[in-house]
Amino acid sequence: MSGNGERYVVGVDFGTLSGRAVVVRVSDGAELGGAVHEYAHGVIEDALPGPGVRLGPDWALQAPQDWIDVLRHAVPEALAASGVPPERVIGVGTDFTACTVLPATADGVPLCESRPGRPHAWPKLWKHHAAQPHADRINALAARRGELWLPRYGGRISSEWEFAKGLQVLEEDPETYALADRWIEAADWIVWQLTGVETRNVCTAGYKGIFQDGGYPSEDFLAALNPSFAGFTGKLGRELAPLGGLAGRLTARAAGWTGLPEGVAVAVGNVDAHVTAAAADAVRPGQMVAIMGTSTCHVMCSDRLAEVPGMCGVVRDGIVPGLWGYEAGQSAVGDILAWYVDHCVPAPYAVRAAERGLGPHEYLTELAAEQRVGQHGLVALDWHGGNRSILVDHTLSGVIAGQTLATRPEDVYRALIEATAYGARLIVETFEDAGVPVEEFVVAGGLLRNPFLMQVYADVLRRPLSVIGSGQGPALGSAIHAAVAAGAHPDITAAAAAMGKRVTGAYLPDPKRADAYDRLYAEYRRLHDHFADGGMLHRLRAIRNEASA
Amino acid sequence: MSGNGERYVVGVDFGTLSGRAVVVRVSDGAELGGAVHEYAHGVIEDALPGPGVRLGPDWALQAPQDWIDVLRHAVPEALAASGVPPERVIGVGTDFTACTVLPATADGVPLCESRPGRPHAWPKLWKHHAAQPHADRINALAARRGELWLPRYGGRISSEWEFAKGLQVLEEDPETYALADRWIEAADWIVWQLTGVETRNVCTAGYKGIFQDGGYPSEDFLAALNPSFAGFTGKLGRELAPLGGLAGRLTARAAGWTGLPEGVAVAVGNVDAHVTAAAADAVRPGQMVAIMGTSTCHVMCSDRLAEVPGMCGVVRDGIVPGLWGYEAGQSAVGDILAWYVDHCVPAPYAVRAAERGLGPHEYLTELAAEQRVGQHGLVALDWHGGNRSILVDHTLSGVIAGQTLATRPEDVYRALIEATAYGARLIVETFEDAGVPVEEFVVAGGLLRNPFLMQVYADVLRRPLSVIGSGQGPALGSAIHAAVAAGAHPDITAAAAAMGKRVTGAYLPDPKRADAYDRLYAEYRRLHDHFADGGMLHRLRAIRNEASA
Repeated sequence: MSGNGERYVVGVDFGTLSGRAVVVRVSDGAELGGAVHEYAHGVIEDALPGPGVRLGPDWALQAPQDWIDVLRHAVPEALAASGVPPERVIGVGTDFTACTVLPATADGVPLCESRPGRPHAWPKLWKHHAAQPHADRINALAARRGELWLPRYGGRISSEWEFAKGLQVLEEDPETYALADRWIEAADWIVWQLTGVETRNVCTAGYKGIFQDGGYPSEDFLAALNPSFAGFTGKLGRELAPLGGLAGRLTARAAGWTGLPEGVAVAVGNVDAHVTAAAADAVRPGQMVAIMGTSTCHVMCSDRLAEVPGMCGVVRDGIVPGLWGYEAGQSAVGDILAWYVDHCVPAPYAVRAAERGLGPHEYLTELAAEQRVGQHGLVALDWHGGNRSILVDHTLSGVIAGQTLATRPEDVYRALIEATAYGARLIVETFEDAGVPVEEFVVAGGLLRNPFLMQVYADVLRRPLSVIGSGQGPALGSAIHAAVAAGAHPDITAAAAAMGKRVTGAYLPDPKRADAYDRLYAEYRRLHDHFADGGMLHRLRAIRNEASA
Repeated sequence: MSGNGERYVVGVDFGTLSGRAVVVRVSDGAELGGAVHEYAHGVIEDALPGPGVRLGPDWALQAPQDWIDVLRHAVPEALAASGVPPERVIGVGTDFTACTVLPATADGVPLCESRPGRPHAWPKLWKHHAAQPHADRINALAARRGELWLPRYGGRISSEWEFAKGLQVLEEDPETYALADRWIEAADWIVWQLTGVETRNVCTAGYKGIFQDGGYPSEDFLAALNPSFAGFTGKLGRELAPLGGLAGRLTARAAGWTGLPEGVAVAVGNVDAHVTAAAADAVRPGQMVAIMGTSTCHVMCSDRLAEVPGMCGVVRDGIVPGLWGYEAGQSAVGDILAWYVDHCVPAPYAVRAAERGLGPHEYLTELAAEQRVGQHGLVALDWHGGNRSILVDHTLSGVIAGQTLATRPEDVYRALIEATAYGARLIVETFEDAGVPVEEFVVAGGLLRNPFLMQVYADVLRRPLSVIGSGQGPALGSAIHAAVAAGAHPDITAAAAAMGKRVTGAYLPDPKRADAYDRLYAEYRRLHDHFADGGMLHRLRAIRNEASA
């Protein structure tokens, strides 16, 4: 397995509930062994560990020790499973969910270690949504002042990001805010733990930290939000490290955790979605990579800068150095189908699926696949989790039209799949209309498991779909970055070409089905545009929130 | 039970799947015994009995023998159950689904007896919907010619009615059409079987036979539809008998079937919904009776004639002599809830309901009732079975807005209940806006079983609800008509006052909930008005039909 002179890298992907390590051959990207470690604390949503302090609604925290435990368990296990001798490993790379961010001392010690009873001392997971009022204020002020960075984020920054979460800490726990020398992405914090050196990667700084054109939002702007917020960027990093760069060398302590040789290269941190582009060998301009799972994240490089309405962000060097990196997203995709299966499918279907030895998704998919396009008579809006792109409005909600007494579960299931495909098409068209051509649509992520769903996307998009050739996209992508950081490949593009895996033309559109979908997509657009202003859906949500209060 | 000199009447209600007889005391309407007889053939939808000839889509037929069997079984059984001596019975009254219509010889023999292999020789049940193209032609021509009767039907006649169904027979089976001396409502045919005399009641002639201002549509009009259709009205009745009138006397043959004395009074035929107004003692102007079951039918007397948009019809003397009788309707009410329970409620709910010994409707109602108004964040259009009033468009379909990943089955169930209540409110408001005041809202029918649903209606309508005091509204109403025909009461109004049963103020609106519903009703109106033109929903249906073809 470890042939003559072969060298290896390790990629570690830190997800929402677990971390995963994979050992990869530098020459061709072969994945030789992997291991997963579940976080002991998972997502901390109701109460803090230990002291048991209750958390408010929409909070979501994590425990740094869980991340260290991934290094201590998943990496050595992956190494053992691969059969690769540790001395053949030349580098390690990591990626993280984002924006997952924590307050730390100047030495990188998380504040939750010294202040375990203070909620704001803990890392805030990406899906901590309790900073929405702070995000709203940031957006309103930025729009009023015409801040030049705002259009780089499709016109609105998210409550998930560094500034909204930081402002929440300041205003709700000023003592913790004051003690936080550093406000750091977990993506960078884990690299700090591996190398002993603080770095800040250009990707999270750009997409989550509002770093644009060489700087953060001005002190003046921050002071207008709250005078005490003026110095916030002093807690961030001013020197940004390029993706694929060498962050430092593995310390003895980290070598002890991982079983890797002390001194191997450690790559600059990265985000799970963005690093997947390398794993799919899709880092050239116009290759849009859709990482389709519970939600979908779209990342794409381009050689041109444009203000694409409703994108999540555009960042120079944000995916690979030298190109503009675009990000867009759909708030809920697999989540909508899971919701439907969990809450809307009747008992007889569960029985029949079980009799056939199928899961509910497989059974519904089988029934839905028997239909012709449009046979269910339905069109839906895929906004059950809000709309990230192109409307950037998390308070929208789902709509379905066309139900009759003859509507059956497989009809709605198919309509929901199609709605997410229409949402993807609208994102692609919005990029192209803004002058950023999408030349290839590449799919990664868990929904690749459903070939029917993929075929729907090909038909709706009227394009061939490429698919990633790995089930571990982010971890493989991190390994590729490690290979670059270790100098085994000259740059990410070259490393991705050698180690990334992509099958082109995996799904081809059927012209007749595509024509039929054009008609339904036109209805989706009408429904979309009618509800896009949010008028009715916002009022319904306001009524709901008042009634629930 | 049969005290000193007490007299009794029998009411027989012919429904879609069964017939029901009830024995009622003339003095006070006490219901002393009842019995139900299921039709052996039920609804004939797929193939004819015996010869097995296949039927087309949307066909629905019945077998006349099933109706006779109700007389032979349900009436004697009800009599036996009541303990009333037959000689104390002074009259019998009947009501029927409508428009249920059949071709017969001049002697009243159904053509299906001599031509059992010809589908068009059988009675067409009200829900036979295969004459839609014929109805469309009638409506288009009537609109083009400005026929004065058209506004009496809210601007559109139904494919369910006598002329559409008759035109279908002519054009698809001219031989059967030619052999049909009579084209007669089952409501009148059954009275013919009881009395040996053909009568035509003013109610079905008006609501289903387009009889207005003393006549049917002109020969000229009919000839323009199809030259061979010119003489169609010769198969109908020209002399109309008033409701509550004496159709004739029970024949010896019918006395043999029923066990009733030969010669007792037989009332003029009637329609199940309309006769219920008498049972609820709600035949005075402004009393709107909503018969709420799988669908809802609204009937109301008024002293004024108005063209109410989207009503089913207005007929002089159509509910009681001397007043205008209005009819409106909601295509699907209980049907929507049944559809939801059958096809959209997940297994764990069924399990929990069963554990608690509750049916699925009861369980969902219990959960829904715990919510505050608007807490589910949803608004729906109740068009899953099309829209009868006020849009008169059977090709509309349901819409629901506001679903999120947190939406649960009880949320949707409640939203669907509310949607039907909004639909009812819109009908009430449309009558009032047209100058026909609704002074009391009276509920009859199977949905009375759900007090939560009733309370929603009271809150949404912002009115007290009266409820009928009988579970056998139509049969009791027919008995009341029998008492009038037998001369025991001077007219329907007096008989209804003595024998009908109504509880006023059974449900009172809660002002706070009513205010909250006003906001949601405003959203319903917006959704309604947006989709009312049918553009999108018609296109979705057209796409569906093409894909299904």
